[in-house]
Amino acid sequence: MTAIRANNIHLQSWVNVPENSDFPIQNIPFGIFKTEDSEARVGTAIGDKILDLKALSAMGYLRDLNYEASDYSSSTLNPILKRGKSELRKLRDRLSDLLNKENQELQSNPDHIDQVLFDQKAAEMLLPVQVGDYTDFYSSEDHARNVGTMFRDPNNALLPNWKHIPVGYHGRSSSIIVSGTPFHRPAGQSKADDSDKPTFGPCRLLDFELEMAFITFDGKALGESISTNEGEDYIAGLMLFNDWSARDIQKWEYVPLGPFLGKNFASTVSPWLVTLDAFDHFRVSGPIQDPPVLSYLEFNGNQYYDINLEVGIQPENGEEKVVCQSNFKYMYWNMLQQLAHHTINGCNIRCGDMLASGTISGPEPGSFGSMLEISWKGTKPVSMPDGSERKFILDGDTVTLRGFASKDNLRIGFGECSNKVLPAKK
Amino acid sequence: MTAIRANNIHLQSWVNVPENSDFPIQNIPFGIFKTEDSEARVGTAIGDKILDLKALSAMGYLRDLNYEASDYSSSTLNPILKRGKSELRKLRDRLSDLLNKENQELQSNPDHIDQVLFDQKAAEMLLPVQVGDYTDFYSSEDHARNVGTMFRDPNNALLPNWKHIPVGYHGRSSSIIVSGTPFHRPAGQSKADDSDKPTFGPCRLLDFELEMAFITFDGKALGESISTNEGEDYIAGLMLFNDWSARDIQKWEYVPLGPFLGKNFASTVSPWLVTLDAFDHFRVSGPIQDPPVLSYLEFNGNQYYDINLEVGIQPENGEEKVVCQSNFKYMYWNMLQQLAHHTINGCNIRCGDMLASGTISGPEPGSFGSMLEISWKGTKPVSMPDGSERKFILDGDTVTLRGFASKDNLRIGFGECSNKVLPAKK
Repeated sequence: MTAIRANNIHLQSWVNVPENSDFPIQNIPFGIFKTEDSEARVGTAIGDKILDLKALSAMGYLRDLNYEASDYSSSTLNPILKRGKSELRKLRDRLSDLLNKENQELQSNPDHIDQVLFDQKAAEMLLPVQVGDYTDFYSSEDHARNVGTMFRDPNNALLPNWKHIPVGYHGRSSSIIVSGTPFHRPAGQSKADDSDKPTFGPCRLLDFELEMAFITFDGKALGESISTNEGEDYIAGLMLFNDWSARDIQKWEYVPLGPFLGKNFASTVSPWLVTLDAFDHFRVSGPIQDPPVLSYLEFNGNQYYDINLEVGIQPENGEEKVVCQSNFKYMYWNMLQQLAHHTINGCNIRCGDMLASGTISGPEPGSFGSMLEISWKGTKPVSMPDGSERKFILDGDTVTLRGFASKDNLRIGFGECSNKVLPAKK
Repeated sequence: MTAIRANNIHLQSWVNVPENSDFPIQNIPFGIFKTEDSEARVGTAIGDKILDLKALSAMGYLRDLNYEASDYSSSTLNPILKRGKSELRKLRDRLSDLLNKENQELQSNPDHIDQVLFDQKAAEMLLPVQVGDYTDFYSSEDHARNVGTMFRDPNNALLPNWKHIPVGYHGRSSSIIVSGTPFHRPAGQSKADDSDKPTFGPCRLLDFELEMAFITFDGKALGESISTNEGEDYIAGLMLFNDWSARDIQKWEYVPLGPFLGKNFASTVSPWLVTLDAFDHFRVSGPIQDPPVLSYLEFNGNQYYDINLEVGIQPENGEEKVVCQSNFKYMYWNMLQQLAHHTINGCNIRCGDMLASGTISGPEPGSFGSMLEISWKGTKPVSMPDGSERKFILDGDTVTLRGFASKDNLRIGFGECSNKVLPAKK
């Protein structure tokens, strides 16, 4: 599909890429990093290293591209994304050339390498994108069926609109945080089933949601739509996304206008924006959509992606247990359909907007993407290596999402999306 | 309450303020305007005029304030708001002094007046604030009762959570437009009650919602809450807000996650941000809240505002009919409660965020704030002066919201919040 050089699966880098690294030369994701006593700036990941684009630019290595020096020294990727898809492809191609072991430009200049290559371990990753509007979809059929089975009718688990509409709702941008940022358990109102009054206190049913999110380039003007055939031009890249959920708060508040405080205390993205192009090699077909969708939701080609996803829970000072292994290919509605639906009424998207998948569950219990489903509303606790049990997430737990695609000896991944949950504030 | 000089109700300006103007010297709202062949810049309204803050600043009139020249030449109010409430009060005081008929500084300098004072009629008003996150509440009891009576059970019109929670949901920022911007009727999916499949086409039940919105200063860090006692420090000002709604699209999509495409095609704000301070003289007490609210929602003092609101519909080339006369004092939940609730889980607010009231209906049919309620789901059409009828909004209609407070010969208002509806795009 995409003709960019960076996607060539036979390329190899002169920078060491350990086995099972998420960041071979075919990935070239973008992120914002800081090293000791330095300002935030744009980098890409290669193996265990970060390549500093600000420094590369200052040395003249990026002079043939249509970016400004300030784009690389920005504390968000938004200025880079503002220049659109075609420029981003040229940038990935150029970075691929510089990292290619057949190319001596940078490789043969150890002084320069010292100034542009940093250990990922020694760097702090910041929120990569200043998100404008954030929309969360509900596009995994297995997840929607599980929730409908638990809370409504097992024989009628999907609501009537579900197979006609990629159901979505607006989320909160201000509380999107980057992997590695601990947060406090939220407090709020909830109501016990046997009481007619709510009480106030720390959330008792804190949950993760395993999701993927994509970031957009500038879209069209208000009033215009983006068809499924055009959608790829507007998708910059993907991140892992943990849509933290306070189930007890959500249950009491969400009728009739949807989730609010049950969600907006924190939502986590992984630090590297992996371009849609980088996953081109991992396209697969999706489910047969029956009943047939309305024409504006029809699409061409393989628009699903085979990306392995997993979630681990690590108790404080304990050993991690993987509680979910899922895959992005399990989606019912794909990203092009989500974008076409979002804009069919004329709603405009802007550079830096984020659209998330909704919880990604697979058909088997081991592939469910939230504790709500894994513990089946708390009725099936998970045994942890330390002998404790988990129905939902406890204080001190670190929840880690991981994701990578793998085929033909090529592995493209995200790194980790990980947070520790601190006790509620007094 | 507020000790700022600009609020003195006895002040008079040397600029003519016509009777029934919304913009006496006690208002001093902020907006972004353009005049012919000029750049967008910050201004305030006085009578029928706009006072140009960029030009005032360039002439040295604002030199004792802690703003930069670039704050006044910005195309949004965000840089001004970023400097907080105390600086904004000093700015209003200074502008009040310059406009005061007892003060000769500007008044006696006709050359300068020519460069800083413009006719409102000759200016184009732009979107005043770049909104970060936008939240819409559902805080008018009469509106919630009307909707519950129509769609659920007249004897049980309010949902169980309604009197315990200022129910709210996240809205879309990208499609917020300023008064005067026409937009196209949205298209989308809807489903007839007697069909089991949806169809696609132009919205058939386009509606306005009469609301007020407030804009925030920077709040606290993620994880912190803003108490009702602190709330006023974080509220910059108010605007009229029309939360345009596509009732047929909304009805089909909104279960279980809330309104989405039924709302995000367009939402309109009035062009002048009127400070909360400017309404200090119009505080009133609110309803008795029974059952009692949880302690974090308790508040002190008169936290409701007596602001008259009305909505007019003008057919293409026809005469306007006022279809609603309501008042901001009819709210059940006030702004401090909304802000305290929004942040009680640690959700952070940022400079330029917008929180809207939800439709403001009063107790009488003439005070209902949407066509859904006025026409009672289309069963009671409104007769227009031209002989036509309105159940909902038709193509070519211009819907205009107006709002002002009035007491002791002082009137503080917003101007108009007005849009024309264009036919759906082919």
